[in-house]
Amino acid sequence: MARRIIECVPNFSEGRNPETVARIADAVTSVPGVALIGKESDPDHNRSVLTIAGPPEAVSEAAFRAVQVAVQCIDLRCHQGVHPRLGAADVVPFVPILNTTLEECAAYAHTFGRRVWNELQVPVYFYESAALSEDRRRLENVRRGGFEKVCELVRQTPERRPDLGGPDLHPSAGAVIAGARKFLLAFNVNLDTEDVAIARAIAVKIRASSGGLPHVKAMGVLLASRNLAQVSMNLTDFEVTPLHVVFEAVEREAALRGVRIAGSEVIGLMPATALAMAAAHALRIENFHSRQILENRLLSNLID
Amino acid sequence: MARRIIECVPNFSEGRNPETVARIADAVTSVPGVALIGKESDPDHNRSVLTIAGPPEAVSEAAFRAVQVAVQCIDLRCHQGVHPRLGAADVVPFVPILNTTLEECAAYAHTFGRRVWNELQVPVYFYESAALSEDRRRLENVRRGGFEKVCELVRQTPERRPDLGGPDLHPSAGAVIAGARKFLLAFNVNLDTEDVAIARAIAVKIRASSGGLPHVKAMGVLLASRNLAQVSMNLTDFEVTPLHVVFEAVEREAALRGVRIAGSEVIGLMPATALAMAAAHALRIENFHSRQILENRLLSNLID
Repeated sequence: MARRIIECVPNFSEGRNPETVARIADAVTSVPGVALIGKESDPDHNRSVLTIAGPPEAVSEAAFRAVQVAVQCIDLRCHQGVHPRLGAADVVPFVPILNTTLEECAAYAHTFGRRVWNELQVPVYFYESAALSEDRRRLENVRRGGFEKVCELVRQTPERRPDLGGPDLHPSAGAVIAGARKFLLAFNVNLDTEDVAIARAIAVKIRASSGGLPHVKAMGVLLASRNLAQVSMNLTDFEVTPLHVVFEAVEREAALRGVRIAGSEVIGLMPATALAMAAAHALRIENFHSRQILENRLLSNLID
Repeated sequence: MARRIIECVPNFSEGRNPETVARIADAVTSVPGVALIGKESDPDHNRSVLTIAGPPEAVSEAAFRAVQVAVQCIDLRCHQGVHPRLGAADVVPFVPILNTTLEECAAYAHTFGRRVWNELQVPVYFYESAALSEDRRRLENVRRGGFEKVCELVRQTPERRPDLGGPDLHPSAGAVIAGARKFLLAFNVNLDTEDVAIARAIAVKIRASSGGLPHVKAMGVLLASRNLAQVSMNLTDFEVTPLHVVFEAVEREAALRGVRIAGSEVIGLMPATALAMAAAHALRIENFHSRQILENRLLSNLID
């Protein structure tokens, strides 16, 4: 039977105290069969992001243990940082990777959320594909106002109350926002110009929020180190809007402005299927299926 | 520590008796931790090919057990088939997949070969990257004449004697030819013409044997089902000559002959790194490393 793999990418409101982050990471790796494949802390945002991968049950258990430690160690009443946050364990998305669907990941998020409320008494909101109402699909809507403001709002405004537990947030740990989403690709295209206004104009043209390509977030920035303007993007559903479609759109918009592409970059990890889609387009491969990717076959067959 | 994965692709001189092939496959899957990711039998060639993947020690053990069964069940003295063969277990190549090298695979082939001779008393030849002399690198050289002829030759011609054991071959099982090679990609490009002479001319132009691209084998064939001429290729080192280099060479040679590409196809499995190289070329991704492929990270961390 083909093994299932999911990812969970919990965000914690602690990016300055390495000891706390290490304790959270240890809680993850205490679960057999999971891999901690990413761990990043940002002191300015006072925030850390872990990436946990493995079979769904093991990943859910690891996410729960990590949240448990965060709830014990992080007190939002003494937390400072520029990033908006609602909880000690702030956002906990479940992501389908292999032989599993977004709907199944929403179910994992719901099971995980029930455990967080039942065992830790931390209220839970559900967002994106795990949202229980349309207005909670967007994370910004759920988190608007942040911990301090939402602590007050839940008293007066029924529509801001948690999906599970509450109405009051946990006094020190706030609430957990659990969800399900697709894999997020970070893809940047560098322009052969230092004029950041061109990168900004292209970003506006191609991004979903202004009627461009679906599932594309984009902004124009200046790469100071190389003095190049860059279209910096997040692709939130690369199966609907693949890498090559985004690249060609940027290339076309740049050409209209008399600018050439200098190159591109991938930040972090990239699923083989995303690369396969770009390769199949460039090489005109007919009927290519992600089952034909050797590593997918190995993952389906080799892990416990 | 990053886990290592290799593949072993043993070829057996039996493609007509499903019971024998099933017994060989059972021997493979009796080893914990390996995956049998491919199993193909060809009755015309009277030959079967298994693809075994996993950690090196487990794969070597599985290959040995498979050869052991083949030596017991296959008698070359009563074997018929059009494919050249020297042994019941004929060719046993070890292939690096993840966190391992061709040199390490040559060492696995040598260890495996010693076990075959010591425990099964079947003599062993080493070929390709496991060859002990330059003239045995090419499989054709080792296998020339086939079982019946080589049984005689080893008596008179010292240079045809096995690398381990012998000089006589095993009376019923012949010899095992163990080796190490890179992953082999089967990639075909279809031309928008039914003129197979054009496909043949392009094949001659691009293949290594006539001074074309290194590590490319190519021939021109007619795809009867679609009435299209096809350049059918094996890429024996896709890191040296990547997919996109081959595709663009065929496209260029076709254009010189006034023909366009109709499409392409990948036969069997494709490593994510091969797709990544094509994608990085098409999307002009700078500094992409195969460590950034999610599935490689998962395989390095998740398997036992």
